[in-house]
Amino acid sequence: MIQAGILGGSGYMGGEALRLLMEHPGVELAWVTSRGDKTVEYFHKNLFGKKLRFIKPEAISPCDVVFAALPSGMIMEIAPALLEQGCRIIDLGADFRLKNRDDWERKYGKKHSHWDLVNESVYGIVELHREEIKKARIIANPGCYSSAAILGLAPLVKNKLVDRQKIIIDGMSGTTGAGMDLDPAIHHPEIANNIVPYNVVDHRHSYEMEQELSLLARDEVNVHFTSSYVPITRGILAICHCFPLKHISREELLTIYRDFYSDEPFVKIYDHDYEKNSSWQYLPYPWVASVSGTNYCYIGMDVDEKRKRIVVFTVLDSIGKGGAHVAVQNMNLMFELPETMGLERLGMHPY
Amino acid sequence: MIQAGILGGSGYMGGEALRLLMEHPGVELAWVTSRGDKTVEYFHKNLFGKKLRFIKPEAISPCDVVFAALPSGMIMEIAPALLEQGCRIIDLGADFRLKNRDDWERKYGKKHSHWDLVNESVYGIVELHREEIKKARIIANPGCYSSAAILGLAPLVKNKLVDRQKIIIDGMSGTTGAGMDLDPAIHHPEIANNIVPYNVVDHRHSYEMEQELSLLARDEVNVHFTSSYVPITRGILAICHCFPLKHISREELLTIYRDFYSDEPFVKIYDHDYEKNSSWQYLPYPWVASVSGTNYCYIGMDVDEKRKRIVVFTVLDSIGKGGAHVAVQNMNLMFELPETMGLERLGMHPY
Amino acid sequence: MIQAGILGGSGYMGGEALRLLMEHPGVELAWVTSRGDKTVEYFHKNLFGKKLRFIKPEAISPCDVVFAALPSGMIMEIAPALLEQGCRIIDLGADFRLKNRDDWERKYGKKHSHWDLVNESVYGIVELHREEIKKARIIANPGCYSSAAILGLAPLVKNKLVDRQKIIIDGMSGTTGAGMDLDPAIHHPEIANNIVPYNVVDHRHSYEMEQELSLLARDEVNVHFTSSYVPITRGILAICHCFPLKHISREELLTIYRDFYSDEPFVKIYDHDYEKNSSWQYLPYPWVASVSGTNYCYIGMDVDEKRKRIVVFTVLDSIGKGGAHVAVQNMNLMFELPETMGLERLGMHPY
Amino acid sequence: MIQAGILGGSGYMGGEALRLLMEHPGVELAWVTSRGDKTVEYFHKNLFGKKLRFIKPEAISPCDVVFAALPSGMIMEIAPALLEQGCRIIDLGADFRLKNRDDWERKYGKKHSHWDLVNESVYGIVELHREEIKKARIIANPGCYSSAAILGLAPLVKNKLVDRQKIIIDGMSGTTGAGMDLDPAIHHPEIANNIVPYNVVDHRHSYEMEQELSLLARDEVNVHFTSSYVPITRGILAICHCFPLKHISREELLTIYRDFYSDEPFVKIYDHDYEKNSSWQYLPYPWVASVSGTNYCYIGMDVDEKRKRIVVFTVLDSIGKGGAHVAVQNMNLMFELPETMGLERLGMHPY
Repeated sequence: MIQAGILGGSGYMGGEALRLLMEHPGVELAWVTSRGDKTVEYFHKNLFGKKLRFIKPEAISPCDVVFAALPSGMIMEIAPALLEQGCRIIDLGADFRLKNRDDWERKYGKKHSHWDLVNESVYGIVELHREEIKKARIIANPGCYSSAAILGLAPLVKNKLVDRQKIIIDGMSGTTGAGMDLDPAIHHPEIANNIVPYNVVDHRHSYEMEQELSLLARDEVNVHFTSSYVPITRGILAICHCFPLKHISREELLTIYRDFYSDEPFVKIYDHDYEKNSSWQYLPYPWVASVSGTNYCYIGMDVDEKRKRIVVFTVLDSIGKGGAHVAVQNMNLMFELPETMGLERLGMHPY
Repeated sequence: MIQAGILGGSGYMGGEALRLLMEHPGVELAWVTSRGDKTVEYFHKNLFGKKLRFIKPEAISPCDVVFAALPSGMIMEIAPALLEQGCRIIDLGADFRLKNRDDWERKYGKKHSHWDLVNESVYGIVELHREEIKKARIIANPGCYSSAAILGLAPLVKNKLVDRQKIIIDGMSGTTGAGMDLDPAIHHPEIANNIVPYNVVDHRHSYEMEQELSLLARDEVNVHFTSSYVPITRGILAICHCFPLKHISREELLTIYRDFYSDEPFVKIYDHDYEKNSSWQYLPYPWVASVSGTNYCYIGMDVDEKRKRIVVFTVLDSIGKGGAHVAVQNMNLMFELPETMGLERLGMHPY
Repeated sequence: MIQAGILGGSGYMGGEALRLLMEHPGVELAWVTSRGDKTVEYFHKNLFGKKLRFIKPEAISPCDVVFAALPSGMIMEIAPALLEQGCRIIDLGADFRLKNRDDWERKYGKKHSHWDLVNESVYGIVELHREEIKKARIIANPGCYSSAAILGLAPLVKNKLVDRQKIIIDGMSGTTGAGMDLDPAIHHPEIANNIVPYNVVDHRHSYEMEQELSLLARDEVNVHFTSSYVPITRGILAICHCFPLKHISREELLTIYRDFYSDEPFVKIYDHDYEKNSSWQYLPYPWVASVSGTNYCYIGMDVDEKRKRIVVFTVLDSIGKGGAHVAVQNMNLMFELPETMGLERLGMHPY
Repeated sequence: MIQAGILGGSGYMGGEALRLLMEHPGVELAWVTSRGDKTVEYFHKNLFGKKLRFIKPEAISPCDVVFAALPSGMIMEIAPALLEQGCRIIDLGADFRLKNRDDWERKYGKKHSHWDLVNESVYGIVELHREEIKKARIIANPGCYSSAAILGLAPLVKNKLVDRQKIIIDGMSGTTGAGMDLDPAIHHPEIANNIVPYNVVDHRHSYEMEQELSLLARDEVNVHFTSSYVPITRGILAICHCFPLKHISREELLTIYRDFYSDEPFVKIYDHDYEKNSSWQYLPYPWVASVSGTNYCYIGMDVDEKRKRIVVFTVLDSIGKGGAHVAVQNMNLMFELPETMGLERLGMHPY
């Protein structure tokens, strides 16, 4: 059994890692930390009766892998000590995501204290970096929007099908993505009937998207990303608009995507059997809620042949495939467990 | 492996049974039916990519157990044939719930065609009928409100602690409880910011509550039940108000409930550690969403010592512990599987 | 034109008073205060472009009437000075609501500094105290739950139709009722799919209900009140359960209510024309959202003749008829304006 | 007083027109029609107690203006008869919106029976066609998405500031936009925690946007529009992404927009006083709910100077400025009433 610890178990991301690791057949939860005095059950009522206790960060013991769900800038400080103990690290935060130091320091507003570790860390999108992940000591688990956008755009960019300078992405996030910290914009009376755009240009996650898509394209890619909160809880919808370099039909596009992800257990190309379910305008596009609570990512698409645009829809759970679930997928790879172990759960319906 | 079939897999209740049986390690799904031509994935987008197909009801084959999620009056017609094949039946509907024929025929607006089967069927609240369930050929899976109210009131009624004629229950249901049939009151623009009382007196489920609580009390119990839809999806909250026959404190009450349910894996008496989590008015009562998607039922309570009232809060998922999940718990008992098999999943947070 | 000021304009209640007074044809807004530096438009985006500015509380000038939307204990301190200036006061908070000093000081956790003013203040439910309100210097605007419960129960209690010791009320409130202060229970990811019971026994508003209903009954009335937050924004639904002292039919009950409120412009007895709109189980009960943003209160009802229970549903907007709107109705009466002035707006549909 | 009739008063759009006309000081409601037998109060509970009755469409009498809220293809059939009676028409539907007959017939799937009337009709965006509207016999009230997109893009397109072939618009609509007809995608359990893309390419409203923006630009404009339903009720958010033809700053852009709409009573350029309200990432963008129930449109914007993109946010109510309210603004102009009459109401907060 792998011994796993969680640094920062009171928030939504750490709580989801906790839920998953408690149910994971190959893992023994070594410890989960929280700085305050409140109990696990105070934060996570779904875990009521499970008799789990937080320990203080000072009290952690060596283990095989640490999931870090900490405010930015914290895990980079303690990573060297953890690595020295032989512990591998999956950072659910942003300390190791960007390979450009200037970008990181400007967007996160601080100096990076261990840039050498960024160089050895692997960006944790399994579908792009599976082999590196297996050997990594540090995984930079991707941002939720970044996962959605990169998975949605990778086949287009890799195959050089679209204008790489004019990729527009509207990201719609549930409020779980805003985290557990109270904020006037996430106060229920404010957002319940609302949509709240925020960080609408130069979002931190843009840099992750550009980094990974440029790698794939072997050329510079620019993404024009805007994010908004919508009054749902867990999901992310990335609507990606691209301009094709030559004509392509919806069917051709579906084939390209199916090929690209043919061996992937958690990425599904979403379409529908029109003949059986005809006459319904909502059919061929994925719904955010379908993958809530899971490691699945659904990708749907369409083509405006008249105006020459491709639109790709990616849905995932911001703390699922966009967070703690993919972190577990990364762990499975790192420790040579079956890749889908602990992650096979189906989503719910209704949601 | 138990061979299980599902009659009526397109709705919410049948779909949840489907999800559970697909993941159940002791079950092989034999078939799932739907009368129309639409696909599994049309109805249940959470099952996209699972390559599951509906069969027509006419095409079913014998199996060990059938879960029936059909409109009322349908399973009673085909139950004799199923039983004859050696198949056991778990009815997620209402055909076998009431032991009083007049009540059933009046409230369901039709003649019952096989009343003899009602007599042999067992009402499927595990916590009250575990031994009978093990031997049953037919389980009448309880109504969602009934499960919430009966579990919340059983310790009070059994121990003769309250006025049995003045039990008031407000049931708040998510819209999943209204089913998949379209209805103006469940149309999103109508209910999204609304609360919709319905069937506010003489609700069908009242009769189940009275039947089971009277059995427990060995005396007539009257429940005064009112139901409303609230704009959440899956949960049920039953707020049960009782008048104590003699003084009782909150602590004494908690002890009685803990004793009553001490051996139950899925019923949790909800309380909080005040010292660690002080100063928060919301603490000691359960939240509906904590048990969403699970077989758990949380019960919390308080006592108004000044005005002499007990209030008990029961939360469960209307298609979880109030539906398909408890149906699987019943199946586990009937087939001597571990009682919690396939049901251990934790709820999610956020919800 | 009446000169009106608002003490505390940043919160939801003060903001709603502000909206109403800005549109009121008989009022000139003299000033609105806020202690911090943030702008009107920061808090109330509906008022964007209206070029309104907060002043500091220290800068207020004398005016005809002051609406106080302050934390409890604040308006009682400055009321004497305001009255001395000839200013009349409508307190949207709780400083003058309870006529029993012990109850007030225990439930609000402080000493009352000007109890003499409580004695002269009038409890602002127009339907019960219209004549006194006209002459009052201080109005204690009622609590939102209190308004709903008292309006729903007054005809029953006044006419001695029900057991006055066994009145049970479940109050469901939208999150606006929780105010603008951030709170983990009102954080969107926590409450969006949830119901949150709180202050479930001995709620402060119980004392207002008992005070006013006892006055009406000329005898002691006990209410058994429990409150919960539901994920809607503005509404209140009070479900009042009573046990009739003698048989009464739904039709008789409707007649009693219609008589009781026959001259009231803002209380509507809710029923539906069954013949025209038959076959719909949701018809005869009021929906919370129908009165959102208005001064209307709808009251619906039913009788369980089998089990002998009356259930009454009252819906209103917690900052409408349960707050700032009824405060304006009180002001209209105090200043001999037409009672409905500035309050005739219809609710919206959808909501 | 203007005599106004409403054809089709049972739906959301007709109901909103009804609410507005009932409160409009310059209008007398002549009649409102519905084909079925259900009552006004059955559909619009906000109008309970107003003693309003539907008449059958066959029973209408001549009046000054008719608001038509009918399924597409119906008003074009009866328009000639209405005009002959001297009645002017404001079509809340789509029969007169497109000036290209092929586009209309293809997108609406039928032959147009009175194309001559399309030629004389005026597209009812007041900010672009005020003078023509005053003289029009027929107003083609714009589509809700179209209003949002056109108002958001007009200053950019008119001033030739952006690439006219690469305008991308993500439209997010509340479910009111889906209308009152029941639909599985708008069933509460399906959409409450969901986002539902639909008609994602070649949406009917794209043609309106292109028609009006091309007129403004005096050149062909292509819009790349995708629509989704989000679980709010009334609002529309259009996120418009454009590529600037030369460098422009956010401040310059704000100035251009303020100039463009300087005389408009209902279009507000949304910004915030950073110094007073600093440090909040959500500040400078408009929120959908702020304009709910009103004729206001807020427009906010930002510029990504690094990647060279302009993003413009337009918010309005789909049956407010995107529907019945702007229809009343059109009526005011047509009948020489003050343009803002009956439309001054402020939005609510909370929403």
